[in-house]
Amino acid sequence: MKKILDKKDFQIIKEGITYPQGIKAAGIKCGIRLNRKDLALIYSEKLAQAAAMYTTNKFKAAPLIVTENNLTKSKGKLQAVVINSGVANACTGEKGLKDAWEMAGYVSQGLNIRQEYVLVTSTGKIGEFLPLNKIKAGVAKAISCLDYTGGEQAAEAILTTDTCKKEIAVNFALEGKEVRIGGMAKGSGMIHPNMATMLGFITSDISIKGELLKEALQQVVEKSFNMISVDGDTSTNDMVVVMANGLAGNQLIKKNADYYKFYQALYYVTEYLAKCIVKDGEGATKMIEVKVKNATSFSEAKKVAKAVINSPLVKTAVFGRDPNWGRILAAVGYSGTELVPDRVDLYLKEKIVENGQPLNFSRQKIIEYLDSSDEIKIIIDLKMGKESATVWGCDLTHDYVKINTKYS
Amino acid sequence: MKKILDKKDFQIIKEGITYPQGIKAAGIKCGIRLNRKDLALIYSEKLAQAAAMYTTNKFKAAPLIVTENNLTKSKGKLQAVVINSGVANACTGEKGLKDAWEMAGYVSQGLNIRQEYVLVTSTGKIGEFLPLNKIKAGVAKAISCLDYTGGEQAAEAILTTDTCKKEIAVNFALEGKEVRIGGMAKGSGMIHPNMATMLGFITSDISIKGELLKEALQQVVEKSFNMISVDGDTSTNDMVVVMANGLAGNQLIKKNADYYKFYQALYYVTEYLAKCIVKDGEGATKMIEVKVKNATSFSEAKKVAKAVINSPLVKTAVFGRDPNWGRILAAVGYSGTELVPDRVDLYLKEKIVENGQPLNFSRQKIIEYLDSSDEIKIIIDLKMGKESATVWGCDLTHDYVKINTKYS
Repeated sequence: MKKILDKKDFQIIKEGITYPQGIKAAGIKCGIRLNRKDLALIYSEKLAQAAAMYTTNKFKAAPLIVTENNLTKSKGKLQAVVINSGVANACTGEKGLKDAWEMAGYVSQGLNIRQEYVLVTSTGKIGEFLPLNKIKAGVAKAISCLDYTGGEQAAEAILTTDTCKKEIAVNFALEGKEVRIGGMAKGSGMIHPNMATMLGFITSDISIKGELLKEALQQVVEKSFNMISVDGDTSTNDMVVVMANGLAGNQLIKKNADYYKFYQALYYVTEYLAKCIVKDGEGATKMIEVKVKNATSFSEAKKVAKAVINSPLVKTAVFGRDPNWGRILAAVGYSGTELVPDRVDLYLKEKIVENGQPLNFSRQKIIEYLDSSDEIKIIIDLKMGKESATVWGCDLTHDYVKINTKYS
Repeated sequence: MKKILDKKDFQIIKEGITYPQGIKAAGIKCGIRLNRKDLALIYSEKLAQAAAMYTTNKFKAAPLIVTENNLTKSKGKLQAVVINSGVANACTGEKGLKDAWEMAGYVSQGLNIRQEYVLVTSTGKIGEFLPLNKIKAGVAKAISCLDYTGGEQAAEAILTTDTCKKEIAVNFALEGKEVRIGGMAKGSGMIHPNMATMLGFITSDISIKGELLKEALQQVVEKSFNMISVDGDTSTNDMVVVMANGLAGNQLIKKNADYYKFYQALYYVTEYLAKCIVKDGEGATKMIEVKVKNATSFSEAKKVAKAVINSPLVKTAVFGRDPNWGRILAAVGYSGTELVPDRVDLYLKEKIVENGQPLNFSRQKIIEYLDSSDEIKIIIDLKMGKESATVWGCDLTHDYVKINTKYS
């Protein structure tokens, strides 16, 4: 698993979730939101292997409960995904759960597939009920609009306060067969008044065993979606799902070189989408990448990197183009990791702290770097072990406060 | 320990650290900062029992290391405290440590007391060295200015970006003797570019055993200073110290009713100072109090309360006068505590969520409450156990971003 992100092995395509064989999608206006697309449908002509990961928030939204139920009942098989924006159907109790089942039912009936092959998810305001009539009519409309080129419409319909669509596709060859992966995502943590949800949808035509697909998803999500943060707030509706329908015609892959080829490509897709999300974080002007090197374990490295990326003082310093390395070290220091302060090196464009103490660097040069780069890279070398972790976030700006207070 | 904060048992006085018998102080300009007081000295005529608590940040500043060393060597005895603002003497390596020893030495020589009876602390910019010449002259000047009314000057000299002094004093009777406690504090976590440090200094003339003083300090700090947050960033220089010189003339107290009287008064002092700090948090317009009730343990209650008080979405909602209960529940949900979502009640002025679902409350009434009150109270009832915890923080405003980015 060393050759992660070696792009030689796959091609990046300007496409989205309908890029793989046999995947149709639609994105339509069903009337939840004012003059904006608000319902998306993804359909695989062939029943697909699927794997999903859900929010760890204890207030798990109703649609996620329905989805988990369905995926368990179907033993990881999936044929359709329905998503509405505008209403999250979270904190809605028994009625919310009934509504989510109802919504899955519309899709199952309309497409004439078993209900357990339907994944249902929602994003938007917490504590409001779904307008079932609108959803019912919307699902019928979406089914009639399903198309092999519908990926872009779907990517638009799932957005809430996002300022841009988040899509990507890749292909690679397995034994002479072209295998395709497409993906789309929305959101950036809980970044808008009453709006929630980070959602990721990945399709593929690869032929792969369900358990291997699940393993791959868990591993790439841990290094991509789980490594981003805009505000540290975990939503009630987060979910990532991958479905693989086998239409590429490759031989069912096992855990060999072919699997790693797929893994690499899948990882590229999830990391790309995850970065899209932080770049589009509310009010963000810059993406920040924090890499922690030479920690005793991956989880320790991650702990340190997360402390730095979530520090409001580091985030405002980046927004202010301020080479304030003291704030970065302070965050490293309170992260809770074991460290030897006199061993820590810090890089911000260049090495500026060595063994816990500042080098004689040019402040002006670092200010220029902070000013001119869209992606700010911070590297922390703990010199404690051999593991590393990389996380992504964004700066904290006036616009973040503006967007999140303007509600009332 | 049930009757916490029963104010009948003590009187609140408009005074500070020089209120107890035999305590002198001074606050002077030594030239580190431009035209502002920047050096404070506290002196107890009689050698005092003392206890201190320090930051948990791994990048512990040099003066804290010297202080810990001294307090160990003196077996918890203390006679003088010296504080400079402007330079934190953190991340300064071997030279920083030598400088901190030097600074303690000036006080020891000037007051003719043993060096281990001196506590030394610094607050300000990380990564800069102390200007020892200025400190040396400043200490001499401060010694000459020591006075029974010097508390206010000292409270001023320790400030950095604080907008107001933070002082309090109380008295209460023990066997007919008046016992006094005085306190001062500065800062509000790491809230300013390159500036750090929450510092708290408490003096008393009570006669008390060192170990009992330490126990009391640990317990009250856990419920006061350790329960506040402005930005979640823990400084490298945080410290709270209490000294008790016995000049009140009470019989040496043991762990009986007298102890709890002292404990109550001390708790009032630390909670008062802690609240002063969040009220003066950078850019803050409102203090937020989050009380979590009926958790399975104090630490679980604290975990939930801290998640809510640190959530940028809850903080911006309060600033925007937005009764956004979904954000509060989401923070409760990701706090990591065990909970049953369908059991959670939420109060914001009144009960607005019951058993995880919104009640039919008047939005307008809550908006008015958020608009008109300086102290916003949020109560979360988990209905899981019997323990509770209360934390204090502040809203996240445009001015917070402004203050923390304007540096460059």
